[in-house]
Amino acid sequence: MREARGLPPFFAVGDAASLRAVWLGPIAMIGTPQEAAEAFGSALPCLQIAEAGEIVPGTPGIDGARTALQALEAAVGLARSGSAAGIVTAPVGKEQLYGVGFAHPGQTEFVAERCGVAPHNAVMMLAGPSLKVVPITIHIPLAEVPAALTVDLIRARALTTAKGLQRNFGIARPRLVVAGLNPHAGEGGALGREEIEIIAPAVESLRQEGLDIRGPFAADGLFHARARESYDAALCMYHDQALIPLKTLHFDDGVNMTLGLPIVRTSPDHGTAFGIAGTDSANPGAMMAALKMAAEAARARLAHDG
Amino acid sequence: MREARGLPPFFAVGDAASLRAVWLGPIAMIGTPQEAAEAFGSALPCLQIAEAGEIVPGTPGIDGARTALQALEAAVGLARSGSAAGIVTAPVGKEQLYGVGFAHPGQTEFVAERCGVAPHNAVMMLAGPSLKVVPITIHIPLAEVPAALTVDLIRARALTTAKGLQRNFGIARPRLVVAGLNPHAGEGGALGREEIEIIAPAVESLRQEGLDIRGPFAADGLFHARARESYDAALCMYHDQALIPLKTLHFDDGVNMTLGLPIVRTSPDHGTAFGIAGTDSANPGAMMAALKMAAEAARARLAHDG
Repeated sequence: MREARGLPPFFAVGDAASLRAVWLGPIAMIGTPQEAAEAFGSALPCLQIAEAGEIVPGTPGIDGARTALQALEAAVGLARSGSAAGIVTAPVGKEQLYGVGFAHPGQTEFVAERCGVAPHNAVMMLAGPSLKVVPITIHIPLAEVPAALTVDLIRARALTTAKGLQRNFGIARPRLVVAGLNPHAGEGGALGREEIEIIAPAVESLRQEGLDIRGPFAADGLFHARARESYDAALCMYHDQALIPLKTLHFDDGVNMTLGLPIVRTSPDHGTAFGIAGTDSANPGAMMAALKMAAEAARARLAHDG
Repeated sequence: MREARGLPPFFAVGDAASLRAVWLGPIAMIGTPQEAAEAFGSALPCLQIAEAGEIVPGTPGIDGARTALQALEAAVGLARSGSAAGIVTAPVGKEQLYGVGFAHPGQTEFVAERCGVAPHNAVMMLAGPSLKVVPITIHIPLAEVPAALTVDLIRARALTTAKGLQRNFGIARPRLVVAGLNPHAGEGGALGREEIEIIAPAVESLRQEGLDIRGPFAADGLFHARARESYDAALCMYHDQALIPLKTLHFDDGVNMTLGLPIVRTSPDHGTAFGIAGTDSANPGAMMAALKMAAEAARARLAHDG
């Protein structure tokens, strides 16, 4: 089954009892990552976090949050040390995590910190089979987006994106496109000047440095099938400009990959859905896609970094 | 051929010589709209605009602009008088139109004025086979969108949309959804307060008046296949929020329909593409879709208005 779907060997880091409550297949307890490959043939290998406590799947609580945080910490360490080729994080209930001392906006920032990378250099890319997008600004009100856009920010995101596509996807010369902020990309200034004053200068400076980057283009013309064939990733100015096309096309198999880290890190692009825990009704497509993408990225890095 | 594609009888209003320069099929000159149905079986009927002058397809000029404007004026008159069941406008070069005294932002506003409808009550709906969207704000810079949103504006657009779906599509009780402005629809106020202060109150007041309307929802979750099945039209807060999903899904067959008019009016959702005039390389999908949608709307109106 797993081989048929092309899943690479992986192991869970967490609490085996909680896993058993939501998964009917066999689980193999392992003591070290090295045991995972052999166990994987017949079971889901699980590296147990000590003293997981009382976890009721579907009912977020303090013990589950503590286990999730310890598992994340352990997984990052395993990847940092080379014992794992990368990590795939499942969604977490942030409210509960804050209750156990978690002090980051999300897992991405936590992983970045543990990797010694400044949070703003860890770049979120959303990827589906036919589209990769990178939002330049992310979780801020729409009204704050125009003022948040700077030449430096766009340049930094573009450079991290280009390098990330090289290392994680083996694309030697990534083709980037850049969306405008305003309708019709500002229509020559008539519908906004950010394209002229900020976005175009950023794109131009990157081109002069040799990047294959084009834009700004009207965002609504960037995401149909023919347009998508012309680039490897689209840089978008705000959250929904990136997430609307991605989720319109790849709602069930969208993957969140963090670029700019020394380790491979992906996660399925959906939330916790505590309400359907254990009902066997969740769609595993995005988690499978995240596992596959992490494995492919790990292979591409080996080839790229030599 | 036309019957196989389900196209209804229609006739061109414009300049036969210009049509001949870009279309190889037979053209039948007609003197009145009443002659169109018979001629349609073997040719494209054309109602000639007097003194079209020198028109070179692909080369926008003053004579072409004047003819386009006269054709638009004539077509609206024919529809207003009942001689045509509706009008389908082709894209125009606005720059040239301005040179012949056209004083409206676009054809939509011109048609609205000729119909005695205030411009803000003529509502742009973009429609493809699997999605209909209505942008609440349209051609303004993104930075101006938050301040342009009001309860009254959202209410007016929603009411016109609901009535338009009833009259033009025969949907007795249209199901509307409303997108939020901010990422995650504001996440309870953490990422913006327009949802709480403006959008939700507008939606609630419309619900209390009996409309089937829900929202505001996170925009990025509204446009995948399953989500689209749950509503007839999505109200979006700004241009790209509506146009990105529409053009991602329906780049080649998107139709622009104006709601709130006494007449049926559609147009293909693309530009002039002067550069490929006469090369036989344009994709006619959107124009055919616009013709079909106008015909269906005309039929639906007959049934609705009795």
